[in-house]
Amino acid sequence: MSNVPAPYSFSRQLAAEFIGTALLLATVVGSGIMAEMLAGGNIAIALLGNTLPTGAILVVLITMLGPISGAHFNPAVSLVFFLKKQLSTDRLSLFIAAQITGGIIGVWAAHLMFDIDVFQFSQKVRTGGAQWFAEGMATFGLVFTILATIRANKDAVAMAVGLYITAAYWFTASTSFANPAVTIARSFSNTFAGIQPTDVIGFIVSQIAGAIIAWALCHWLFANKEEV
Amino acid sequence: MSNVPAPYSFSRQLAAEFIGTALLLATVVGSGIMAEMLAGGNIAIALLGNTLPTGAILVVLITMLGPISGAHFNPAVSLVFFLKKQLSTDRLSLFIAAQITGGIIGVWAAHLMFDIDVFQFSQKVRTGGAQWFAEGMATFGLVFTILATIRANKDAVAMAVGLYITAAYWFTASTSFANPAVTIARSFSNTFAGIQPTDVIGFIVSQIAGAIIAWALCHWLFANKEEV
Amino acid sequence: MSNVPAPYSFSRQLAAEFIGTALLLATVVGSGIMAEMLAGGNIAIALLGNTLPTGAILVVLITMLGPISGAHFNPAVSLVFFLKKQLSTDRLSLFIAAQITGGIIGVWAAHLMFDIDVFQFSQKVRTGGAQWFAEGMATFGLVFTILATIRANKDAVAMAVGLYITAAYWFTASTSFANPAVTIARSFSNTFAGIQPTDVIGFIVSQIAGAIIAWALCHWLFANKEEV
Amino acid sequence: MSNVPAPYSFSRQLAAEFIGTALLLATVVGSGIMAEMLAGGNIAIALLGNTLPTGAILVVLITMLGPISGAHFNPAVSLVFFLKKQLSTDRLSLFIAAQITGGIIGVWAAHLMFDIDVFQFSQKVRTGGAQWFAEGMATFGLVFTILATIRANKDAVAMAVGLYITAAYWFTASTSFANPAVTIARSFSNTFAGIQPTDVIGFIVSQIAGAIIAWALCHWLFANKEEV
Repeated sequence: MSNVPAPYSFSRQLAAEFIGTALLLATVVGSGIMAEMLAGGNIAIALLGNTLPTGAILVVLITMLGPISGAHFNPAVSLVFFLKKQLSTDRLSLFIAAQITGGIIGVWAAHLMFDIDVFQFSQKVRTGGAQWFAEGMATFGLVFTILATIRANKDAVAMAVGLYITAAYWFTASTSFANPAVTIARSFSNTFAGIQPTDVIGFIVSQIAGAIIAWALCHWLFANKEEV
Repeated sequence: MSNVPAPYSFSRQLAAEFIGTALLLATVVGSGIMAEMLAGGNIAIALLGNTLPTGAILVVLITMLGPISGAHFNPAVSLVFFLKKQLSTDRLSLFIAAQITGGIIGVWAAHLMFDIDVFQFSQKVRTGGAQWFAEGMATFGLVFTILATIRANKDAVAMAVGLYITAAYWFTASTSFANPAVTIARSFSNTFAGIQPTDVIGFIVSQIAGAIIAWALCHWLFANKEEV
Repeated sequence: MSNVPAPYSFSRQLAAEFIGTALLLATVVGSGIMAEMLAGGNIAIALLGNTLPTGAILVVLITMLGPISGAHFNPAVSLVFFLKKQLSTDRLSLFIAAQITGGIIGVWAAHLMFDIDVFQFSQKVRTGGAQWFAEGMATFGLVFTILATIRANKDAVAMAVGLYITAAYWFTASTSFANPAVTIARSFSNTFAGIQPTDVIGFIVSQIAGAIIAWALCHWLFANKEEV
Repeated sequence: MSNVPAPYSFSRQLAAEFIGTALLLATVVGSGIMAEMLAGGNIAIALLGNTLPTGAILVVLITMLGPISGAHFNPAVSLVFFLKKQLSTDRLSLFIAAQITGGIIGVWAAHLMFDIDVFQFSQKVRTGGAQWFAEGMATFGLVFTILATIRANKDAVAMAVGLYITAAYWFTASTSFANPAVTIARSFSNTFAGIQPTDVIGFIVSQIAGAIIAWALCHWLFANKEEV
């Protein structure tokens, strides 16, 4: 979550982004399937069973992979570190590729575990101004959390991101995808966590807008402070 | 949550209070809407879906904004730091203004995300001696938690406040507003978390009483100890 | 949770034990009333709404009052520190008196907040060999957690106790009172968390037995180690 | 969770593995019984009441017993430390024996607390390719979490394991046994958490495969890094 540390080779950084995003999506989609299957039609209980695992795994993944790659698992986050000149264009592209492919593999792994068709596309409609505003807010909040917590207390970033997403699953009307790779990957699953492919682009545009606004706000808020 | 640190300009401190209180209210009201909408009429499940996000976002907001403004987000807390002579009258007034306006903006943002009327007033009755006693207890507990944890372990304040509110949503009959800015802002939302405008004043009086009693108790408990 | 620190006067230590146990019982009983009232007859949901607040408030109370009195809030725990010769007979008696009176006051405060009769006695039957074995196990686990975590990582005691009780509410058939002062106080409330007065003694005997076994086990486990 | 520390005698290490695995299984099976009994047929609520205690007790047990034995409580984890040459063949065998016997005693203690037949065998079918793949994934994730977190932040291992299992109870179709001793012990309980004895071997083979893959991945990921 900090700037990319020197000692790990770039291939290992890519592996960390790939594995981390895969485990994140396996958790998001797998717990969504499990929760919906068991919740007896009560969607709030299903969302609880989807929220707790997602928040928990984020803390784990960022804690353990942060020292290797920065633990972005999110093209919007990598973009912000590119804007902060901590990631080159080349590395940004490869990070994003690793995140997207990792995410899709994670979704497929969840399908395999739950013994459903591996290849599918979501039919869940998630579109419209309110949803887009929600995704913009969600990603704004996520990037703001990351950038401000890095300055306040670097060791708390993993916990802060896990708790932020725990909150955002409930306070945003879109249940907070807040991540273009997650959005693309979730379009490959016609389950609780899915989003139909045609609605992906609206989410991604909103997410990038939210991320850039958070970056600009932090730029002002921390002006005249030592660089991270 | 500690005394206001020197390096940040006052305008940035106000921005932190404004943004933090806005995100807090967006979470309280947004997760209340989501939880009630999904809970199928089971209010305990709705309250779980309102509690977890609120506790989680408090830990995040205090961790990341604490170093800028102290992360009060609460006029009752700012008042106590004024009583401890760590905030001037002028700054106290501006902090409170930032908290109230931030809170209202946060409520409106939640309404926008959930595609409901932006401007509304709550019709939920929250009044009477038991509710006022509950608000007094809730705010007593919150201020006591803040002041005692600052002395015991400054780094634990964010976690302690998040966990305290997690508990207080359930153990107080009023679900623990414990914050005049939150109370005012929640009167602008006719949803799960609302309070009708005419009941606001009773809550605020109780909250201020609870805060002052906690401050006095800590004054005695920590007498003859080095000042924070 | 450690041995009593020197700088606080004994009257302040007693105040900390009194206030802490009062807030603990207000939480246990208050959240029990709220959770049962809202859960629509689903006892598992009610127990979730009782568990989260109890675990959360324990972390807060031990974090903030630990440096003052050791944050026992529990005669079985104080007894163990007496056995470890870290508490005199006089102080042990006064600690226990503060814990019991604090606990009862906390129960009454919960009744006031929820606008029910302040003075009541529970009619809930909690007795028999399985329940007593459960209470023995619960208290064994609690004291073992405290003594072993003090040695492993003093700063983690508050978190460990909160998480232990979160688990023990569910894995013990008695929902883990694990505390004679809590047991006595809960007999004063004919609500979700109550226990009828005639069943109190069986619980307390089991709790003390569990505590002493944990102390003996730790005595062997940590033999030849530097004293805490 | 790290390599076995010198100062504790091996008999105390075995005691720590025995007690820790017993308390883990008492929690897994006991909270399963309680949760299913109270959940009124809603399995998602029952799984929540089984997940929170399991995640919580893991954090407690690893925090307090880690300095004594490394807090494996899991033959697959001990096997990995054997592969890393941090445990001899003799000690590996005795660790596994302590874990299995501890686990079974813990299950029996849960039965005693809930006043059901102490000696029983599960009749719950858990078999087939999807379940085995899920167990492989679950154990891969657990061992990867342990090895990567030890390198990233040793002090975070207890929290990481607790949160990982919290997630894995939901994202794996098998609810993540991820532990041969836990699998064997759970075959002795015909309750919520059970697995019929004939299905044990398939789970254990999958778990060992997942553990070895995680170990190999970490071997590559952390090549040319200083040894732990």
